[in-house]
Amino acid sequence: MMEIEAQAPGVQERDFSALDKARVVEALARVLPVGVLMFENEDLRPYECDGLAAYRSVPMAVVLPTTEEQVVAVLRTCSELGVPVVARGAGTGLSGGALPHPQGVLLSLARFNRIVHLDPHARTAVVQPGVRNLAISEAAAPHGLYYAPDPSSQIACTIGGNVAENAGGVHCLKYGLTVHNLMRVRGVTIEGEVVEFGNHALDAPGYDLLALMTGSEGMLAVVTEVTVRLTPKPQLAQCVLAAFDDVIRAGDAVAAIIAAGIIPAGLEMMDQPATAAVEEFVHAGYPLDAKAILLCESDGTPEEVAEEIARVREVLERSGATEIRVSRDEAERMRFWAGRKAAFPAAGRMSPDYYCMDGTIPRKRLGEMLSAIQRMETEYGLRCINVFHAGDGNLHPLILFDANQAGEMERAEAFGAEILELSVALGGTITGEHGVGIEKINQMCSQFSVAERTQFFRVKAAFDPAGLLNPGKAIPTLHRCAEYGRLHVSGGAVPHPDIPRF
Amino acid sequence: MMEIEAQAPGVQERDFSALDKARVVEALARVLPVGVLMFENEDLRPYECDGLAAYRSVPMAVVLPTTEEQVVAVLRTCSELGVPVVARGAGTGLSGGALPHPQGVLLSLARFNRIVHLDPHARTAVVQPGVRNLAISEAAAPHGLYYAPDPSSQIACTIGGNVAENAGGVHCLKYGLTVHNLMRVRGVTIEGEVVEFGNHALDAPGYDLLALMTGSEGMLAVVTEVTVRLTPKPQLAQCVLAAFDDVIRAGDAVAAIIAAGIIPAGLEMMDQPATAAVEEFVHAGYPLDAKAILLCESDGTPEEVAEEIARVREVLERSGATEIRVSRDEAERMRFWAGRKAAFPAAGRMSPDYYCMDGTIPRKRLGEMLSAIQRMETEYGLRCINVFHAGDGNLHPLILFDANQAGEMERAEAFGAEILELSVALGGTITGEHGVGIEKINQMCSQFSVAERTQFFRVKAAFDPAGLLNPGKAIPTLHRCAEYGRLHVSGGAVPHPDIPRF
Repeated sequence: MMEIEAQAPGVQERDFSALDKARVVEALARVLPVGVLMFENEDLRPYECDGLAAYRSVPMAVVLPTTEEQVVAVLRTCSELGVPVVARGAGTGLSGGALPHPQGVLLSLARFNRIVHLDPHARTAVVQPGVRNLAISEAAAPHGLYYAPDPSSQIACTIGGNVAENAGGVHCLKYGLTVHNLMRVRGVTIEGEVVEFGNHALDAPGYDLLALMTGSEGMLAVVTEVTVRLTPKPQLAQCVLAAFDDVIRAGDAVAAIIAAGIIPAGLEMMDQPATAAVEEFVHAGYPLDAKAILLCESDGTPEEVAEEIARVREVLERSGATEIRVSRDEAERMRFWAGRKAAFPAAGRMSPDYYCMDGTIPRKRLGEMLSAIQRMETEYGLRCINVFHAGDGNLHPLILFDANQAGEMERAEAFGAEILELSVALGGTITGEHGVGIEKINQMCSQFSVAERTQFFRVKAAFDPAGLLNPGKAIPTLHRCAEYGRLHVSGGAVPHPDIPRF
Repeated sequence: MMEIEAQAPGVQERDFSALDKARVVEALARVLPVGVLMFENEDLRPYECDGLAAYRSVPMAVVLPTTEEQVVAVLRTCSELGVPVVARGAGTGLSGGALPHPQGVLLSLARFNRIVHLDPHARTAVVQPGVRNLAISEAAAPHGLYYAPDPSSQIACTIGGNVAENAGGVHCLKYGLTVHNLMRVRGVTIEGEVVEFGNHALDAPGYDLLALMTGSEGMLAVVTEVTVRLTPKPQLAQCVLAAFDDVIRAGDAVAAIIAAGIIPAGLEMMDQPATAAVEEFVHAGYPLDAKAILLCESDGTPEEVAEEIARVREVLERSGATEIRVSRDEAERMRFWAGRKAAFPAAGRMSPDYYCMDGTIPRKRLGEMLSAIQRMETEYGLRCINVFHAGDGNLHPLILFDANQAGEMERAEAFGAEILELSVALGGTITGEHGVGIEKINQMCSQFSVAERTQFFRVKAAFDPAGLLNPGKAIPTLHRCAEYGRLHVSGGAVPHPDIPRF
């Protein structure tokens, strides 16, 4: 293993402090037209953070290329000078994946905002990375089609960022993550080579570098074009709201729905503090006496929806739901969802600050996680409201704190870290859809063994031998993990105190 | 690029001729119990080929380990001595992916044949790689579940081989390829490190090495355990048989079904020579005057099936079908499929030898491909019968020849190569589900650019720096492509004579 460590670039964190800003700016100016390169402090400031605003850093320069040739020129120049490059879409990411490097270039793809081609017959769209997620669905709408993955930031977030994070959304249980809705990516390596992976067929020969690129958090290449799959719009969607007098029972109902062979278009869970928080904000009509509610959506033809909802109702009744309502029209369906979608802003109204977690656990362990979170609330002296993409086991506990109260932020971070480590110990992961970025890099030490992390570094080095693309993100160095001092717990070798040894 | 070439191991084909068999056997004997290692010629002979019997090679030794520790010991020993290792499942592959290396060790996973755990609640099964594809469905059947990917070799082929080839099947249009039905793989690197990628959640942090391993044709690691997703058995399946008096029209009907937003459980096409060949063999009741037939399967609840079949019928009528039959019962449905499934044996009855191709093209270009194949039949003086997984554009033209007639095998190979290159030129790929192996390695030069192939090599080197796992397969060396002399045509730079410049 020591030999591997020495071999794989990126295993050691690199020191870029000797880079000279003037030299970098001069080299970029030689290869880029006027208006693409920015380096004055006031121009750089808007790029200092993404959606995780707790981390901020001003880059050396920002480039806003308009063509693939300019992207090649930027990457080739940075490669020659050994300058870090951080690619950025709309900057809506929640894990700091687009946090600039202080000695690096921030490469914004905002101007790559063209839908190149939309083929309703083949149900595909070729788009540039800076196209907004929702803009694809808008362009496809006249053909009765849409782009299925729908992260809650879909009004603003761009497809390039979706590829980098393998974005999901409320409907990914049925329609898949970004990786399941992509057919092809075109990109540029740090050395300036243009490559394409995937194609319009169901499978491609060679290693699956399309899947490898997806969710790689900007660390392997810079995407310049994407072909996405479009999905026919369902004729009808209806939503079931079910109330439970016990959170564990609600969690078990989620597992029972899936075990019955039903794959709902969405299956969300909120606990009582969450429904209380949103109800006074949006008046969704949620039953406030319920300890937890489930929202279960069905879509398809009217016949399919009727049949599926009958089966869902049967499972919910058997699981002990105290109340079941089915949306009677589109207005009521939208109202059911309005509450769920308002959960984050509602948390923002209840508390000066909140910290959104993103762990994922096997569905059948939802109850255990909820009990543990209750224990942690007491332990850390902080409130937590729970909003889950329950169908796929993806949790968004929102830890409420006040950063102006001494020690609260630290307690919130420790609370969050414990949730993530329990997620891993329960057989899950530290991130469902928000990515690792800078935020969850320490928890990667718990998720993966040294051999596995070393393999990640070697794959990184296969694309970016000098470690210039988004350095310091997503994959922790062996050194960092040693300092962090947590052991790898996947596979159950080091059980968490909350769960029995397995 | 020259610098990359020099750096990336595996870019040059390695020479293993200096390896001494006695030394390799002695080293393996020291780390393995009796009964695991074979090296006498008569014991090696059964392993000399896989399903592509035209290529044969006797390995230096065969190992049949029973535990992961033994796999680690074999790989560590081979790694230290620099000995090539070829992993093998049931050997049903059709591209020579499990062809032994004459100076290498053949590692059979036949004894890894245990279903470790089946969880009907979570709808998952943990299985060893030597478990047969169909055995998983059999074990899941009492719970109303099955394993969806169903390659036609599913009685014999094993899940380890399915992972290596990213196997598909008749139902993959709706239910996905192997990669879409996998949750986790555990494997051993050539250096003997045990690694796990993926987990029981919908997504995993870090690079998607689970997807990267899938379809990597045994070149990145040796799989020792797999967690697969299980699918609920549909309540009902019905099959529509549609006849057309023109193959192009049949091809267009396929595209129209998909464009209408219908995703059938299976969508197959056979041309008149294919139906004639199977009809006298299995009496499926196919209309023999039709130039082509489609088989379109629908599954789900009775309501879903009825609704979908009504829509399929409507599209088929609009597309000019001359006859439409819907299976009235399970016996008739099985008879419709019996003909399709007998296509390969029927080809075997018609001709002393046949060569099965596996190109994939965009659905809307099916008609063009069929016209071109007709032209090639005349050009090469050989007959070709066409059986297509039409729904996903995966073609299985069966070129009939007699290896005992001088020149026929060479003509069949050239015919096949031209089909594959046309597949790439039409925007498709050289393999849909059978893998590249040794058979299609030259066509990889047409499919990928030098930059892309170099990237493949670097990924390979990230797992296997010395190039010992399955050397000479799947990814051609730059040198081989230079010798082969064909240009990269993806992206349309070098159009095929059959298609307009695009």
